[in-house]
Amino acid sequence: MQEHDRQGQVGPRRRPPRRERDFAAIRGGEDAAFRRRIISAAAEIFAERGFAAASIDEVARRLGATKGLVYHRYRSKGELLADVCESGLKSLRESLEAVIGHNERAVTRLTGAANLHASEVLTNLFLHRTLAEATSGMAVSTLNGNEAEMIAGIAEQRRRYDAIFVQLIAETVEQHDLPAGRDTAMLGRLFVTALDAPILWPRQTLAEVSGRSGLIARQLAYFALRGIGASDATLREEFSR
Amino acid sequence: MQEHDRQGQVGPRRRPPRRERDFAAIRGGEDAAFRRRIISAAAEIFAERGFAAASIDEVARRLGATKGLVYHRYRSKGELLADVCESGLKSLRESLEAVIGHNERAVTRLTGAANLHASEVLTNLFLHRTLAEATSGMAVSTLNGNEAEMIAGIAEQRRRYDAIFVQLIAETVEQHDLPAGRDTAMLGRLFVTALDAPILWPRQTLAEVSGRSGLIARQLAYFALRGIGASDATLREEFSR
Repeated sequence: MQEHDRQGQVGPRRRPPRRERDFAAIRGGEDAAFRRRIISAAAEIFAERGFAAASIDEVARRLGATKGLVYHRYRSKGELLADVCESGLKSLRESLEAVIGHNERAVTRLTGAANLHASEVLTNLFLHRTLAEATSGMAVSTLNGNEAEMIAGIAEQRRRYDAIFVQLIAETVEQHDLPAGRDTAMLGRLFVTALDAPILWPRQTLAEVSGRSGLIARQLAYFALRGIGASDATLREEFSR
Repeated sequence: MQEHDRQGQVGPRRRPPRRERDFAAIRGGEDAAFRRRIISAAAEIFAERGFAAASIDEVARRLGATKGLVYHRYRSKGELLADVCESGLKSLRESLEAVIGHNERAVTRLTGAANLHASEVLTNLFLHRTLAEATSGMAVSTLNGNEAEMIAGIAEQRRRYDAIFVQLIAETVEQHDLPAGRDTAMLGRLFVTALDAPILWPRQTLAEVSGRSGLIARQLAYFALRGIGASDATLREEFSR
């Protein structure tokens, strides 16, 4: 039956007319843009009021949208939290994927990944503050079973993301660009949380560094690389690119 | 009138009898112990539910105390938050004061201070998570004017605490134990937030490292010192003590 329908759609006559296709594309684009706007407003409100005190109504008000439009997408605040976190993780993964496939030394990929991670955190600070709070167990007891499960899934995804840094560090050790014989899991933890540091910076500090996120990301990456043992010669080479 | 009363109290006959003084001392001690218990329960609940969703009633329940006993001390949840933060700051300052007065090289004091800061964070994690959230602007919009002012005061105290690290780093540079010509304010930020990193660690990570806080504190201090530029020779010397 379905197969028949699909076959029936084949051929130029079944394609929607030009104008209709354009509208669909616009609607799809608007939808993605609206989701981004909801996520950004939600992250802001979670940061301002804390997750437990925030409400979907407030997110809708911030957007100047009706509650219905937001509820249509998210049945609960927990679902919205999960989507904010998913969005933060997706940005981080996309940054990482942009460098880890490159055919370069591990230390070069690690430096690139560190830079991109720090930039992403600095650029979307509220998003990553929300993600960090969720993975570190924020307000877990206010979530229902289904929501708590979603957040546990997010924490697991974040662990897998962090594990890629541990793997990159291990490769860098193998290629003799970091000293051997150390606990790479611990180095990975120190490395990634150092890059996440702006999440903990007070507003005043963030105001002081605003507009310099490229420079700050490099300083964070340099600090983290040196912290886990990169030599000054390696750092000179990696940071002169 | 008051002056007269005070003078009237002078003399041995006005001192309370021995037994009464003992009770007063015990009451004072019990009072301090009760305050520590409230603070520890409050920090735990703020971490579990988020500040906005937490309540004084819940803190009292956790303690098995009556609401009245807690309300007698804190008129609002904001006051309780401020006291949790004060307590965290006091522990940090006491650690710092234990080393900064020593007649040693700046790098030795800096290493000692880093170790103690990291230990304190690992030992009282909920307390320091609450402090970090408050100074980074947690749920500020749910506080009333008076409470917001208290939290602004906490943030200012924390800035002064962090400034001592910047000062120690500057002294270390002057004594040629760190390379010169760099932005010490930025190094201070990176240094202190690296030591605060366990605040961002997920529960699972904290479970993995539990019982090893001495070792982890040293690893954090080593990472932060190396990150800001300490040479391997300096690190060998400082961490062999």
